[in-house]
Amino acid sequence: MHLAALHTPSQIQLNSQGNLKHFLTIDGLSKETLTKILDTAQSFFNEQNQLITLPLLEGRTVMNLFFENSTRTRTTFEAAAKRLSANVLNIDIARSSTSKGETLRDTLWNLEAMAADIFVVRHSSSGAAHFIAQTVCPQVAIINAGDGRHAHPTQAMLDMLTIRSETKKPFEALSVAIIGDIKHSRVARSDVAALQTLGCKDIRVIAPNTLLPYGFDEYGADVRLFNNMEAGIQDCDVIITLRIQNERIDSPALASQAEFYKMYGLNKERLAMAKPDCIVMHPGPMNRGVEIDSSIADGPQAVILNQVTNGIAVRMAVLALSMQGQLQEKGLIEAIAG
Amino acid sequence: MHLAALHTPSQIQLNSQGNLKHFLTIDGLSKETLTKILDTAQSFFNEQNQLITLPLLEGRTVMNLFFENSTRTRTTFEAAAKRLSANVLNIDIARSSTSKGETLRDTLWNLEAMAADIFVVRHSSSGAAHFIAQTVCPQVAIINAGDGRHAHPTQAMLDMLTIRSETKKPFEALSVAIIGDIKHSRVARSDVAALQTLGCKDIRVIAPNTLLPYGFDEYGADVRLFNNMEAGIQDCDVIITLRIQNERIDSPALASQAEFYKMYGLNKERLAMAKPDCIVMHPGPMNRGVEIDSSIADGPQAVILNQVTNGIAVRMAVLALSMQGQLQEKGLIEAIAG
Amino acid sequence: MHLAALHTPSQIQLNSQGNLKHFLTIDGLSKETLTKILDTAQSFFNEQNQLITLPLLEGRTVMNLFFENSTRTRTTFEAAAKRLSANVLNIDIARSSTSKGETLRDTLWNLEAMAADIFVVRHSSSGAAHFIAQTVCPQVAIINAGDGRHAHPTQAMLDMLTIRSETKKPFEALSVAIIGDIKHSRVARSDVAALQTLGCKDIRVIAPNTLLPYGFDEYGADVRLFNNMEAGIQDCDVIITLRIQNERIDSPALASQAEFYKMYGLNKERLAMAKPDCIVMHPGPMNRGVEIDSSIADGPQAVILNQVTNGIAVRMAVLALSMQGQLQEKGLIEAIAG
Repeated sequence: MHLAALHTPSQIQLNSQGNLKHFLTIDGLSKETLTKILDTAQSFFNEQNQLITLPLLEGRTVMNLFFENSTRTRTTFEAAAKRLSANVLNIDIARSSTSKGETLRDTLWNLEAMAADIFVVRHSSSGAAHFIAQTVCPQVAIINAGDGRHAHPTQAMLDMLTIRSETKKPFEALSVAIIGDIKHSRVARSDVAALQTLGCKDIRVIAPNTLLPYGFDEYGADVRLFNNMEAGIQDCDVIITLRIQNERIDSPALASQAEFYKMYGLNKERLAMAKPDCIVMHPGPMNRGVEIDSSIADGPQAVILNQVTNGIAVRMAVLALSMQGQLQEKGLIEAIAG
Repeated sequence: MHLAALHTPSQIQLNSQGNLKHFLTIDGLSKETLTKILDTAQSFFNEQNQLITLPLLEGRTVMNLFFENSTRTRTTFEAAAKRLSANVLNIDIARSSTSKGETLRDTLWNLEAMAADIFVVRHSSSGAAHFIAQTVCPQVAIINAGDGRHAHPTQAMLDMLTIRSETKKPFEALSVAIIGDIKHSRVARSDVAALQTLGCKDIRVIAPNTLLPYGFDEYGADVRLFNNMEAGIQDCDVIITLRIQNERIDSPALASQAEFYKMYGLNKERLAMAKPDCIVMHPGPMNRGVEIDSSIADGPQAVILNQVTNGIAVRMAVLALSMQGQLQEKGLIEAIAG
Repeated sequence: MHLAALHTPSQIQLNSQGNLKHFLTIDGLSKETLTKILDTAQSFFNEQNQLITLPLLEGRTVMNLFFENSTRTRTTFEAAAKRLSANVLNIDIARSSTSKGETLRDTLWNLEAMAADIFVVRHSSSGAAHFIAQTVCPQVAIINAGDGRHAHPTQAMLDMLTIRSETKKPFEALSVAIIGDIKHSRVARSDVAALQTLGCKDIRVIAPNTLLPYGFDEYGADVRLFNNMEAGIQDCDVIITLRIQNERIDSPALASQAEFYKMYGLNKERLAMAKPDCIVMHPGPMNRGVEIDSSIADGPQAVILNQVTNGIAVRMAVLALSMQGQLQEKGLIEAIAG
């Protein structure tokens, strides 16, 4: 069973020609759409493999609406939008809204009326970006920058771009292991959906039972669960280590950092069980000595900083494509360049 | 008696050719000047009625000095300045000034010396922007973004642009009702001044006596007071509902939100007493169910979100015109295009 | 003995052709390098002596990393970078780093991977910018915006530009007095180093013994110490008054503001002992009536606001030159225009 089937297929993120007009979730997007995002992101690197700038969003106003604080993610979107020449406004959304007794709907309508073209939305509630795109501001391109435990689709796409660029193998041929706190990770959820859509046949989820979500055993034949790190990592091409949130430690789910490291920390001995050219990823921020040993984090197989740079390219891509999709929907542009 | 006569006529906001070089207050400005602001703002809309961007402030530095916090107003000025290609700096003015024992004058002179061209000033004290323009930084274009209970002139101009665009009637032919907390509203004060200057002959101020300021009965023959909502609203072309500040509730001035809604809330029955094409305005943020019923706020006669978009256009206009006036005064440009 | 000799010569701030690739400290830089910075800064003024804008950093990303809060200095760098068309991101570095258990190194590597070209670094620890440039992010141009008591090199260069522009005499012919809290001032340290390098032969440091640092008597024959204000100021061309930090008052080092003003405050009588065309400088924010009398601060010999404007020009210069030096080092540009 495909992960997408667990949720309402998000057709609302596509315009009538089937192109993106919002970017809310990986679920329900086709392989072609995901590949187009990856190709667009890739086109933002020059021959020296450096990120370029180009004025695809010149004259456009991008508003960052971070209901939940995340300095890092906000910075990546701000950097991406500015590389496309957009006007970027960081809205202190927590302060500007409910504190004055205004409804959230009215606040968002006000921001839209300030001639906003794109909202980048981060919210602690699952489905918040989806709700805004569907019922509040459908004519603003809504980019989901993380909502609750549900989705973190730009993180998934930067992971996919990194896998594609660094392994140089087709997704169909890859074995990918995801290790750690699957239960609380919007990254894991989005990564599995993207990998499945792109054709990956061997996805291994490695975690203690206490950090596995309900229903993960229904993900389909291409997703296998492992409680044992060594078994799960065997002959992998890609290892994605997840961050252990500090607030999980000393809970019933997780005794201690040391305990987690002993069972699931990625070190040299364990990495040696994967393929020799296996790449190692982490969404950051890293807890060195918990999820991953420093020798691995700083070693030749780590592509963790490539992920960060690819994150800028991917965010540039979804910003530009969603804007194009909105303009196409409104009849303001005719076709979208392949 | 004209409202302007209650204050010192603000000739300091005009340069020696009579063009704006600051934008501090509606009081004392001519019908021609107000009309020029409206025309300039209108010119920033394209044929699809969308706001354009254009580089009238390219290379100029706009500093937002919000001594009093107002996320929304600051955002509108930031959006407006960026649409004109200005470099915008949000100054944490509360922190950068007095905390280090520096005088406000020195702080402002320092900011001016950083090659600032425009200060957007919001302050809780009446006359603050006026003071800065007159005695501290006369060569920086000062834009008043709200000072105490005195003036909020960009709000007044966006209201005038909305009235002009949406009613398509001359101001001389309009009956305009302003409802609510007139006493604490810089919007009401500025709106009345603008309406009078633009020729409106029938201005009705509707409020309980406790929310009326002293001296409002001296505004002139074109301003009438009503304690009774139904009488005041009769055959109006325009209704401006004002926000009830939460801090007024449960005071001697205002018993409760429910009480206010019962007496002065705009609902379908009352709106039906106005002309059939009467437009309904609100400066935001709205208290639905207090000043205005949701059926009206979301209904076909509401032009509340148009006000917001017009607010960007009006702020673009006063930023651009004041900058031009400064350059003209300094002899750096010859004439100002009509 | 030259001040530079007290520290490790900072060759790391030069690329292999001897051009700046970081800007960390005055120490160890040649007269030619300092003169090039001054000439570049001077080139950013037009014939009306106004600061121009030009797109030398178009497409470049400048990140402000202020580990120690300084609204004013951050604003000057933001204004400078925007005048060069850079994309500027103010990073809430205190929040984005250690709070999540990430190492500072990892945080910086992440920011670099977001395609940052320049970091402007302010830190309370001496040597922080140096450390980042040498061992963490050598390929990002690091600009020191003040580190502990060590250096504040852009302040020194704006002081030098002001002295050169306002006295119109060669540095070799000048007598310069620096008055006040030398012990805790990174400005004093950087100013002395810059003056020595530029050829000044008569530098006078005027302070009570409690505000003199250890080792200042080893600065060389061109630096003389004075406890007596009147003796030190005699026939000076330039007086630099330093800010007394509020936290020094009522300490064993300094009895009171009134006491300091009585002994070392710059007033008319004392200024009359300097040359008639002596200029008066202050790094700001000023404590009027403590370091300097208002009649002097607002008088014809004060060039305090010129310093602020020159500060923008100097910051533009070091941003542009360091970026060029990085590109040259990477082989991306051939030569740097004189």
